Amino acid sequence: MKKIMVIGIAGGSGSGKTTLAKNIAAHFGEKIAVLRHDDYYKAQADISLEEKQRMNYDHPDAFDTKLLIKHLRALKNGNAVDSPVYDYTVHDRSRDIRHVEASSVIILEGILIFENKELLDLFDMKIFVDTDPDVRIIRRIARDVKQRGRTLESVIEQYLSTVKPMHEAFVEPSKKNADIIIPEGGNNPVAYGMIIDKIEKHLVN
Amino acid sequence: MKKIMVIGIAGGSGSGKTTLAKNIAAHFGEKIAVLRHDDYYKAQADISLEEKQRMNYDHPDAFDTKLLIKHLRALKNGNAVDSPVYDYTVHDRSRDIRHVEASSVIILEGILIFENKELLDLFDMKIFVDTDPDVRIIRRIARDVKQRGRTLESVIEQYLSTVKPMHEAFVEPSKKNADIIIPEGGNNPVAYGMIIDKIEKHLVN
Repeated sequence: MKKIMVIGIAGGSGSGKTTLAKNIAAHFGEKIAVLRHDDYYKAQADISLEEKQRMNYDHPDAFDTKLLIKHLRALKNGNAVDSPVYDYTVHDRSRDIRHVEASSVIILEGILIFENKELLDLFDMKIFVDTDPDVRIIRRIARDVKQRGRTLESVIEQYLSTVKPMHEAFVEPSKKNADIIIPEGGNNPVAYGMIIDKIEKHLVN
Repeated sequence: MKKIMVIGIAGGSGSGKTTLAKNIAAHFGEKIAVLRHDDYYKAQADISLEEKQRMNYDHPDAFDTKLLIKHLRALKNGNAVDSPVYDYTVHDRSRDIRHVEASSVIILEGILIFENKELLDLFDMKIFVDTDPDVRIIRRIARDVKQRGRTLESVIEQYLSTVKPMHEAFVEPSKKNADIIIPEGGNNPVAYGMIIDKIEKHLVN
């Protein structure tokens, strides 16, 4: 069986990692499967919405990384998986699942994917998207207020109480585990071209 | 005429940028020309050795960057140049020159090459080699004491008085101008492979 290439794209909240993953996936179409660590937030049906809103979603323990690793291993072995789908509006797994076909190239994106040793060992290429904190919070405000209907105050409160400290404790130090760090992931044509070339070479070989 | 590709490799003293440039050059042989910003330290025949030893070799003004830009432009236009050769033992240009043939790919390496706007505009790919300061000073001590016969005290004195402050003032901020940042340049097979692929693609097209 042909070797399956696993690419990790990490970076802080608002860094542009999702844009980069989407652009790569759009370039190659069905040859690439994309998994998101965010979809593997722990299921928490038994907790009140108020409690959920106070939780720390930026700590490694918020994720069911065990299940993600199981799925990633299955995909590496050529088997399809059913990924959970997270619903940000209710802070829980939605009832949807997403069927992910086995593909030649798998992208996993998330803020904390380079923090877990077991996950790290599964990647063939580790990309960290590096963007200044001020630019990241501006993007996060735009996304959460405009797209997710949250108040500016709640976004800033969450940012200062968990997003920022967890970034500094876990995300930033995990940058060292990357193979390449790219400034401004969504808008960096040279780095983007190098990644596309690398994937193309894998697909033709 | 075929387009000539210019690659900049920057990074702090002891980061591994020279190793990376040498490895790439060795891989491609004569198809690649390498220029070193260090060879363009200003000529300073009229200054005493004592004064020279006290000078700041980590500030942009220590370099004859104008001449380097002239040479880089000539190489980009397909003309050979005669690069000066710097002699660290006397802190001055040596009497040697190095004849550099026009090549399909030109690498320029140096600590401060991403700090100069005019230089920045000449690169097709900008690579910054990022290595922790403690690892960099360890390498610098090994190099300067063992290979260049300097005392440990003089290496540390120079490091604290000019290398470190100039790194923080000029080198570190110039990292933002890179297209890709690679941790541990001399020993990073994934990033190395991506750079080699990119150059190979340029050479065959």
